[in-house]
Amino acid sequence: MPHIDLPPLPGIAGLLAGFPQTAEPLNHLAETLLRGPSPLSPAQRETIAAYVSRRNECTFCAETHGAVARRLGADESDPLIVALLTIADRVRVDGRSVTADDIAAARAAGADDRTIHDTVLIAAAFSMFNRYVDGLGTLAPTDPAMYEKHAHNLATNGYLPQ
Amino acid sequence: MPHIDLPPLPGIAGLLAGFPQTAEPLNHLAETLLRGPSPLSPAQRETIAAYVSRRNECTFCAETHGAVARRLGADESDPLIVALLTIADRVRVDGRSVTADDIAAARAAGADDRTIHDTVLIAAAFSMFNRYVDGLGTLAPTDPAMYEKHAHNLATNGYLPQ
Repeated sequence: MPHIDLPPLPGIAGLLAGFPQTAEPLNHLAETLLRGPSPLSPAQRETIAAYVSRRNECTFCAETHGAVARRLGADESDPLIVALLTIADRVRVDGRSVTADDIAAARAAGADDRTIHDTVLIAAAFSMFNRYVDGLGTLAPTDPAMYEKHAHNLATNGYLPQ
Repeated sequence: MPHIDLPPLPGIAGLLAGFPQTAEPLNHLAETLLRGPSPLSPAQRETIAAYVSRRNECTFCAETHGAVARRLGADESDPLIVALLTIADRVRVDGRSVTADDIAAARAAGADDRTIHDTVLIAAAFSMFNRYVDGLGTLAPTDPAMYEKHAHNLATNGYLPQ
């Protein structure tokens, strides 16, 4: 059960609907990070978001962004993505744990400064979204069809209210 | 040394200057969370931001928001703040670790739903800002006067570019 009174919507959806004032900058941030200009494709960025959420065991976020990434054609075996997920996982645990070797490996796989920046910021942002969703005890649906429907909307329309 | 090429500004300042596209929603989020409408005063909210940053050992964020909180008259011994910092520390570690007892203690100290929401979201957001600042290896000044100057600006003007 959620820790506070929320509209009957799962995961972050109830939080965004219940608190429109903070929803606005949160949606804007998600849209900028996952759909705005970047050397990384939306599929690559959703892969980072899904990976961090999975490692944080945030069911709602992991299932949602995992489904969005699949719809956008994500490929977790791409060597660049492998190197970026290593950095993302360090950031998820503690920003200070990113090493010069991690950065060098990402550059060797083709990452430039902006790619490294966007990877770190997406991993940091999902360290926020995961805690927001789980810290208030929101509900995660068990029906995979719920996530597929939500993912279809996000893959098609992005994160700004339609 | 930072992991990427950045303008010669410490902490998040170099990141915001170097990446204006993502700076915009990040500044907007900070302003909304720390200065927008809330049952918590700016001093109380800066106290939560400083506490999470201190516990995450993010020197730049802890020194900056600690100095802002002091300027705004923060009181860490206020029983409501004590209860909210307990929740913030749980969120910092893992959102799922917030207990019904933590929430009940905050309500007994005077917290309503919006207070609990804002506490969780501020703690989650600084879990992001701390990782962004440290994950890219930004520099933290050692001179306390630097933080006092930065804190004066933030206490006076908030987080939107002037």
